[in-house]
Amino acid sequence: MRIEIICTGDEVLTGKIINSNFSYMAQKLEDVGLSVHWGTTVGDDRDSLLDALRLAGERADAVIVNGGLGPTVDDLSQEIAALAADVGLVLDEAWLVRMEEFFARRSRIMPPNNRKQAMLPEGAEFLDNPIGTACGFALTIGRARFFFTPGVPRELRRMLEEQIIPRLLAMAGLQGAIFLKRFHSYGLGESHVDQLLTGIEAMVPDGGVKLGFRAHYPQIETKLTVRGRDDADIRGKLGPIEAEVRARLGNFILAEDDQTLEGVVLAALIAQQASLAVVETFTAGAIAARLAHLPGAEHVFRRGVIARDLDLVPGAVGLPPMRLSDAMTQEKVEAVARAARDASGASHVLAVLIELDTGADRIDLGGTVWIAIAHPAGAVPTGAGQSEVAFRRSRIVGGREWVRLGAAELALDCLRRFLQGLPVVERIDFEKV
Amino acid sequence: MRIEIICTGDEVLTGKIINSNFSYMAQKLEDVGLSVHWGTTVGDDRDSLLDALRLAGERADAVIVNGGLGPTVDDLSQEIAALAADVGLVLDEAWLVRMEEFFARRSRIMPPNNRKQAMLPEGAEFLDNPIGTACGFALTIGRARFFFTPGVPRELRRMLEEQIIPRLLAMAGLQGAIFLKRFHSYGLGESHVDQLLTGIEAMVPDGGVKLGFRAHYPQIETKLTVRGRDDADIRGKLGPIEAEVRARLGNFILAEDDQTLEGVVLAALIAQQASLAVVETFTAGAIAARLAHLPGAEHVFRRGVIARDLDLVPGAVGLPPMRLSDAMTQEKVEAVARAARDASGASHVLAVLIELDTGADRIDLGGTVWIAIAHPAGAVPTGAGQSEVAFRRSRIVGGREWVRLGAAELALDCLRRFLQGLPVVERIDFEKV
Repeated sequence: MRIEIICTGDEVLTGKIINSNFSYMAQKLEDVGLSVHWGTTVGDDRDSLLDALRLAGERADAVIVNGGLGPTVDDLSQEIAALAADVGLVLDEAWLVRMEEFFARRSRIMPPNNRKQAMLPEGAEFLDNPIGTACGFALTIGRARFFFTPGVPRELRRMLEEQIIPRLLAMAGLQGAIFLKRFHSYGLGESHVDQLLTGIEAMVPDGGVKLGFRAHYPQIETKLTVRGRDDADIRGKLGPIEAEVRARLGNFILAEDDQTLEGVVLAALIAQQASLAVVETFTAGAIAARLAHLPGAEHVFRRGVIARDLDLVPGAVGLPPMRLSDAMTQEKVEAVARAARDASGASHVLAVLIELDTGADRIDLGGTVWIAIAHPAGAVPTGAGQSEVAFRRSRIVGGREWVRLGAAELALDCLRRFLQGLPVVERIDFEKV
Repeated sequence: MRIEIICTGDEVLTGKIINSNFSYMAQKLEDVGLSVHWGTTVGDDRDSLLDALRLAGERADAVIVNGGLGPTVDDLSQEIAALAADVGLVLDEAWLVRMEEFFARRSRIMPPNNRKQAMLPEGAEFLDNPIGTACGFALTIGRARFFFTPGVPRELRRMLEEQIIPRLLAMAGLQGAIFLKRFHSYGLGESHVDQLLTGIEAMVPDGGVKLGFRAHYPQIETKLTVRGRDDADIRGKLGPIEAEVRARLGNFILAEDDQTLEGVVLAALIAQQASLAVVETFTAGAIAARLAHLPGAEHVFRRGVIARDLDLVPGAVGLPPMRLSDAMTQEKVEAVARAARDASGASHVLAVLIELDTGADRIDLGGTVWIAIAHPAGAVPTGAGQSEVAFRRSRIVGGREWVRLGAAELALDCLRRFLQGLPVVERIDFEKV
């Protein structure tokens, strides 16, 4: 089945906003085994939009149109859709009432120009928008079925998921259920993950499982799209293959599905009734900023300490002056973590000290990353008193920003590994040895 | 002149990467007074790319094609361009030599498949790529002039600026020079800025100045595109209008052109031989993370202290226990800033304490932001000893993320105002009073 996407709006065409709706829609369709064949972007312009609808109507089986359903004069989608389908516009009374209620709930009177949003092409199929005033609709133009959607991302997302994807799957004859399982990993490059998972799709012989990847440094997302007759069929297919992915990627899996690394770390701290302090240098708050603002962190995150000059670190955690900038050792980093534990009262401390190469930024500029995790000694997981320390050293090369992002990820992942009882030291693809 | 853009590549079409090259090109063209009329996205597919080239060749005067110039089998742009123009491919000997030198400088031998990157359609005009192996080229297909560009963003950017925009301006008859002046502001909404600048374009009667905006919360970018016969003509036009923009937007202008707010703050601290410590709560390191990793900050940024629970703030800056969570006052916030100044030895302290509304995240969740800037008392700008404190309180509403971003921006902007001798307290559009 040939699917196209048309994005409309001057803000997108002139580049004022980046068209993230397009990539969102394309990814969502890929996730359910459908593919976009062609994308078109046009502005708030009658002739262009009409041309775009007609051309797509000649080429495609299904077309998603995004944007142009608002109340203002430059929102043209209903009008031009009707023109392209050679029908008139009719008032959708039910939607008008829904809109009036929408405004009434917000103690406002609906402005007259919003009425335009209830004018749909004759014969169009209504597509509900439970969270906004721009309803969607489906209409046949040429040989293609068109789905018109709002430009507001959260409204689009809900309509795509609830209304459009089920219709597209039915059109494509892809009946039955579909499920997307995602694994997030850090430390293995995309081609390495690909190689480790060789042959995994063949574990389900009917081609019901498709493997895909999405890399966003420093993480790799591994996706399994599973198709089946029903949920039980999907569970049966997914079970063994999911276990096999976990076995092969092992300790490198840091989160699954909608989880994030920082969310997993926070949940582990909460589960262990632990608390956290962080000491940072060149990451300069980037580690704390990922974790400490999350809901629930207010009871767990005790303190963050940032010093940009390594020699200011000891004083900031209550240690006597000590030279770190040209004489770093494991013992000194561990002492910093222990001191921060004493000073903050946190059960766990993540200290990340970075020796950054000097000179101008360049692709081979690197940093040596010294990570120490101070934690309670002995069997009592959250007790105060004597500290023990886990340690990891690494070297990351690739320019200032690459080092900064990589060090934050490595440090949070070391803490994740420690809290999950996994080895903190395990070779990763992104470090120099 | 009608300009189109064609983006090619499976990674873009499937949404694996967001198409930021498109918005970059569209903005750059807008900046010089040109407009994109139509955008097309196709994958690494011969038929689709050929169709896209032919359709654009019938409609447009000029077309920029992005991507597909790499060495691998799925890079199809040269081959399909030649097919669409009905010519053969010929080896560009000069580019082959340049590529071999490119690899030799990196102590590598050029792999055989890179030779493909020197095969250009017969009659094509060579477009230099000084920083990569994918050269560009220009070619006429149908009635349009096509410009083929590499997908790697930094290579595209340079080629667009140096090679393509001058050719497009010549084609459009927009001879002469062009200049883009940009102002970054915080605190005024886009419509407010627009209204304050009413009539500004008319100050230059020949239409040589165009005003535009780009909003990316919390900042607004105001752009003046100035066209003239030569640099002197542009300077003459820009001088009075630039002064007028500065007069009308006044204290709200936080940076110009390629400057950033954090860069301006850092430069002001360096110029005043000052140093900085930061105290954060719900922003949780986001303020420090913008400033402290910048080159030069290692000599200025003394310490960052983060506490997520307001009642842990006093202890973290060396004050005796003090209840803040339900009894915040200006005096207490100022005391925190003074204590952090004593503890860190920094000449200046930015303390940002946030009382976040309780309950689940929602659009009307807000936070009260208490900002104190401790600084040396008296005339000596960077001396130690007695502190004076500047104070600002604000309330920001719009959900957790909105509050977090807004508070970081407001705090950095207050510090910028203080360092520039401007009022720290001035009503902004984004706060509730």
